[in-house]
Amino acid sequence: MDDRSPLHAQLYDEMARRIRAGIWQPGDRVPSEKALVAEFGTSRGPVRQALAALRSEGMIIGRRGAPPRVQRTAPTQSFDTFLSFTEWARELGLTPGQRVVTQDPRPAPDDIARELQIDAGDVIVEITRVRLLNDKPAMLERSVYPYAIGHTLLTADLNAGSIYQHLLQQGVVPIRARHTIDAIAAPPLECEQLSVAPGSPLLRVRRIAYDGLGRIIETADDRYLPAMATFVIENSAEHRTAFTRHSAA
Amino acid sequence: MDDRSPLHAQLYDEMARRIRAGIWQPGDRVPSEKALVAEFGTSRGPVRQALAALRSEGMIIGRRGAPPRVQRTAPTQSFDTFLSFTEWARELGLTPGQRVVTQDPRPAPDDIARELQIDAGDVIVEITRVRLLNDKPAMLERSVYPYAIGHTLLTADLNAGSIYQHLLQQGVVPIRARHTIDAIAAPPLECEQLSVAPGSPLLRVRRIAYDGLGRIIETADDRYLPAMATFVIENSAEHRTAFTRHSAA
Repeated sequence: MDDRSPLHAQLYDEMARRIRAGIWQPGDRVPSEKALVAEFGTSRGPVRQALAALRSEGMIIGRRGAPPRVQRTAPTQSFDTFLSFTEWARELGLTPGQRVVTQDPRPAPDDIARELQIDAGDVIVEITRVRLLNDKPAMLERSVYPYAIGHTLLTADLNAGSIYQHLLQQGVVPIRARHTIDAIAAPPLECEQLSVAPGSPLLRVRRIAYDGLGRIIETADDRYLPAMATFVIENSAEHRTAFTRHSAA
Repeated sequence: MDDRSPLHAQLYDEMARRIRAGIWQPGDRVPSEKALVAEFGTSRGPVRQALAALRSEGMIIGRRGAPPRVQRTAPTQSFDTFLSFTEWARELGLTPGQRVVTQDPRPAPDDIARELQIDAGDVIVEITRVRLLNDKPAMLERSVYPYAIGHTLLTADLNAGSIYQHLLQQGVVPIRARHTIDAIAAPPLECEQLSVAPGSPLLRVRRIAYDGLGRIIETADDRYLPAMATFVIENSAEHRTAFTRHSAA
């Protein structure tokens, strides 16, 4: 535990540690909220938030009403929760939000055309939004779609909800994605929208999402305030993980 | 493909794209180096490097001599390759290197004691090294061990090779690890050792490694130049992935 972390993150770390260390064994009942509140001497909110995080990662299971049980040692996240900022935030018990910055068609520049495997100059739909967690800016998201897939987004109310949900309703179903993680210095738009000083470090996640036919339906470039989100991978000697380190040397 | 990437990374991206798009099907022979050199109009080096990366990730298989074949669509990395900078670099056909900055015992401060689950003030072994790829600084690595596990590192020649190999020879076998990825502004030591301007964005990977008994044997804090390394995760709707996004909200 790190005293600089918010309380729910400290509780999460401690409970995750107990599961990993086998102090809480798979199949065990997780102590009640009341018992955890008493043990940790905190209010109920952070305990609930930590339990929600463990639940969303599959480390504990159990529907509302039934006593939650310890499930497995490697926290995981479903594809849907990983793709959708909205679903992810809700699973953690946080309130997702967004503010549209741009929502426009435009001709694809060379680099985006290559990523989407279309011709340079073909029309794309580009959506830029600030994403919020509990009303605080957490990330600047730029998502790009081929026109045929994204044109209905141009008239959608994207201040109101999930692009992902909107696409699903149009029959556009992402089923595979590739995420590339690195760090960048905040450019001017990010400084303005995320209220950070020029050059502040941001955690960048670039994504390419594919549908069931292997077509590229979206490329995205998400820039997180590192104080608001981190990424965690657990791996073991028994299994290869779809998590790789790439060199640009 | 991104024209700003080095040539081998562009070739890697293109070949990985063909495998993901099913242009190269599982079981297919991968075109010969000669054919790829002719197609892409490059020299043999970048083609070999791109093939080595695909091989290390399990996207193509085949021993030296036998024709390589397309294997699977999700690139993966073994636990060992992921843990060891040395093994990772070698698999990519790059030359790993290191320069020891500190190699000392010291009393554990509070935060490290908590991470290692020891008492504050207990002696730890702290190793700080600059890691190199083809003689260029790529990362500053700070690894910390409980004294009982790390004391033999104090007299080892860590300019010569892998800490991980050294620990294995002592019977210390990590089998599970948790990696947390975020971004930070380069502090003074990193600026000096990696030759970057104060505050430059660095990609930070913190790691906790466990042995077969669930004991914590190492905590590490690796700070990469983002121009030198990125992390990639592929996931799909079919499988949950041990890759999670955490909130610090």
